[in-house]
Amino acid sequence: MSSILEFQVEKALPGEDGVPRARAGRIRLPGLHGQGHVIETPIFMPVGTQGTVKAVATRELEEMRAQIILGNTYHLYLRPGHERVERLGHLHRFMNWSGPILTDSGGFQVFSLSDLNKIDDQGVTFRSHLDGSLHRFTPELSMEIQRGLGSDIVMAFDECPPYPATPEQVQAAMRRTVSWAERGLRVELKPHQARFGIVQGGLFEELRTRSAREITAMPFDGFAIGGLSIGETPDLMQKMAYYTAPLLPQDRPRYLMGVGRPEDLVEGVRAGIDMFDCVMPTRNARHGILFTSLGKLNIKNQKFQDDAGPLDPECPCETCTKYSRAYLRHLFVCGEALSARLNSIHNLTYYLHLMRQMRTAILENRFDEWVKTFYSKINR
Amino acid sequence: MSSILEFQVEKALPGEDGVPRARAGRIRLPGLHGQGHVIETPIFMPVGTQGTVKAVATRELEEMRAQIILGNTYHLYLRPGHERVERLGHLHRFMNWSGPILTDSGGFQVFSLSDLNKIDDQGVTFRSHLDGSLHRFTPELSMEIQRGLGSDIVMAFDECPPYPATPEQVQAAMRRTVSWAERGLRVELKPHQARFGIVQGGLFEELRTRSAREITAMPFDGFAIGGLSIGETPDLMQKMAYYTAPLLPQDRPRYLMGVGRPEDLVEGVRAGIDMFDCVMPTRNARHGILFTSLGKLNIKNQKFQDDAGPLDPECPCETCTKYSRAYLRHLFVCGEALSARLNSIHNLTYYLHLMRQMRTAILENRFDEWVKTFYSKINR
Repeated sequence: MSSILEFQVEKALPGEDGVPRARAGRIRLPGLHGQGHVIETPIFMPVGTQGTVKAVATRELEEMRAQIILGNTYHLYLRPGHERVERLGHLHRFMNWSGPILTDSGGFQVFSLSDLNKIDDQGVTFRSHLDGSLHRFTPELSMEIQRGLGSDIVMAFDECPPYPATPEQVQAAMRRTVSWAERGLRVELKPHQARFGIVQGGLFEELRTRSAREITAMPFDGFAIGGLSIGETPDLMQKMAYYTAPLLPQDRPRYLMGVGRPEDLVEGVRAGIDMFDCVMPTRNARHGILFTSLGKLNIKNQKFQDDAGPLDPECPCETCTKYSRAYLRHLFVCGEALSARLNSIHNLTYYLHLMRQMRTAILENRFDEWVKTFYSKINR
Repeated sequence: MSSILEFQVEKALPGEDGVPRARAGRIRLPGLHGQGHVIETPIFMPVGTQGTVKAVATRELEEMRAQIILGNTYHLYLRPGHERVERLGHLHRFMNWSGPILTDSGGFQVFSLSDLNKIDDQGVTFRSHLDGSLHRFTPELSMEIQRGLGSDIVMAFDECPPYPATPEQVQAAMRRTVSWAERGLRVELKPHQARFGIVQGGLFEELRTRSAREITAMPFDGFAIGGLSIGETPDLMQKMAYYTAPLLPQDRPRYLMGVGRPEDLVEGVRAGIDMFDCVMPTRNARHGILFTSLGKLNIKNQKFQDDAGPLDPECPCETCTKYSRAYLRHLFVCGEALSARLNSIHNLTYYLHLMRQMRTAILENRFDEWVKTFYSKINR
C-alpha cells in the first residue's frame, strides 16, 4: 500500500518480552505547500486547542524545536469555523505555524465537553458548550472539517467509551469505530493529508486485539491507541499501552492519544509508541506546577520567594536562562499573564527535551540505562 | 548645579506663543552598573506595574525599542517587597530588563488603590488593597523603597489632590508636596539614581505657577507635571499641561505623568513635554481596543471575522506582520492569553512609533505639518 506518509524506523530495541519496542524513527510528510516535513520520533505534540498553544506564540514553539502540534476539530469547528479557517489559508497560515499539524477527529471533545450528546450509528448530535446550539458530527463531516483546517495528519472519527464501561459497551463502541473508520476513508482529503486510524477496546485485552486487527487492516498511514488516560489509573493505562503497541504495524507510526505525565511518556516509549499529546504541560504550567530535571515543583511555594536560582538548572529555555524562581513565583502570585507564558514555555521545553533524550538514548543503545537515571532523578 | 542626569536639547521649536516648546532631546543616565543609557526624547514609557509590563516579555520591549519603562513603588513594596527585589539584583535583574527604569513614588497609588488612607503632614497611613494590612508611607520611606528597587529615575513623594478639589485643598496638597520634596532630597540614593520633582497645583494656573517656582528651585534632575489626567476632561488636561510646561526649566527633562491617549501625547509634545507614561496602550489592548495609523478599532467587532489583512498595514510589529485581523479577533473572542500579548505588543509599538515620528518631525522642522497629517488620518 502506498502512503502519503513515509515512516522509517531507525532503530527498535527489544523489550523485556523480546518484542521490538522502544524505537527511534522519522516521519516524512509532504506539507501543505509541498515543502516537506520531517518529524523525528518519539515526539510529543503540544496541544493548540483553539488555534494557539495556550499562552505561547509560534515563535517560541519554533525556539523549543516543537516538530508538530495538535489542533482540536471540535473547538475550531465551533469557533471560528473550519470554512473560515480554510479561506484564511488553513490552520497553518491562520495561526502562523509552518510546521506540521495533527487534528483530532472532534469525537472525544463531543463526548467530554458538549452538553446532551446523543450517539447513534450514523453520528453524534450535541449541543455546543459555548452557546447551547445544536450540531451533528458524522464520520464524513469530521473528515470535511479536518480537510478545511488543512492539517497534515487527520484522525479517524471514533467513539471513545467512558471509563468505567462494561465489555458490552466497549464492544459496541469498537464496532461503531470500525464502521466509522471505513466511512471516513471514503471521504477524499487534500493531497498532503495523511490519515490515522484509532484502536479502541477499553481495558480489555481481547477487545484491543480485535480492534487492532480490524483497524490495521484498513489503509491508514498510522495508528493511534485511543480510549486511554480517561480516568483509569496510570498503571492500568501503561499496561494497556504496553499490550496494544505491538499489535500495531511496525512500519507505521504509533500514537498514544492524550498521554500524559513525563513518566507515562517514558513508559509509552518503552512500550513502542512514537507520538504523544497532552494538555498536561500547558495546563499544569498555568497552575504553577512545573516539571524539572529534579522532579515536579509548585512555583507558588513560599520557599521560592528568595530563590535567585533558575527554575531548572539543566534547562536551556528562556524561562530558565533569563528569570529566577523568585521572579516566577512573584508573577504567579500576582496573577500576571507572563506567568502562564514563562511556565508553559518551560514545561513544553521539558517535554520536548525529554523526548529528544529518549530518542538519543535509543539510537545509542542505552535506553534502559537512561530510564533508570530518569526515575532516580525525579524520585529523589 | 551638577546632575547625575545629562540632558541635551537637540532642537526646540517655538509654539504659537513664541515660547520654545516641542523639542527633541537626549537624556544620559549612568546606569546601575555604570554601563550608561541614552534616551531619545520625546519618549513614551511602557508601564510595568508589578515587575512586568502586562502580557509582554522584556525581549519584546527590546524589539519594539522601548528605551525606558516604569515600575510602581506601591505595588512592588507590597509584593514582593523592595528589600527582596534589592537582594535579587534590583528591579533590572529581577525582571530581566537591562534598560533604564523610572519608579513612581507610590503616592498616587496609595490615594487611588488602597483602602482607608489617612494623610497627615508626616506621611500617609493606608491599608493594602491586597490583604488589608496596615502600612505607612513617608517621603523618606518612598526614597528608601525606590533606592532598594534600584531604578534609574526616582520620583519625589507628592500629594496628588483629587479631582475636583477646591483651591484650598489643592493649595494644602501643594504645600505638603513642597515640604515632602525637601525631606526626600535629604535621603541619599544610589550613585546611579536621578531624581525628579513633581509640580502640583490642580487646574489653577496661579497654583501651578507657584508650585513650579518652589519645586524647580530645588536640585532635581528633572521635573514632572503631576495631578493631571485624574478625571478632568482631556481639553482641560491639555490646557494645563500647555500652561505648565514652560514654567519648567528648559535644560531639564519634563515629564507629564499618567498621560494618555495618542492625541494627548501629541498635544503634550506640542506643549513642550519630553516624557510620558500611561497604562492605556496595555489596558486597552487587553480589552481589544487597538490604536492604528488609521484610528482606533475594536478587534471583537464581527466585521473582522473574515479579514485576512494586518491589523495596521503601516505597523512593523510582530502582531501586524505575522497575524491577521481575523486571527486577532478569534483569539480575543476565545479569551486566549495570546490575545492580550499580541494586542499589547501592537499598542505599545504604536505608541513608541508615534513618539519616534514626532521626534523626527521636530528634528526636521516639520512638526506642525506632521500634527496636521496625524489628525487627518485618525479622524477620517
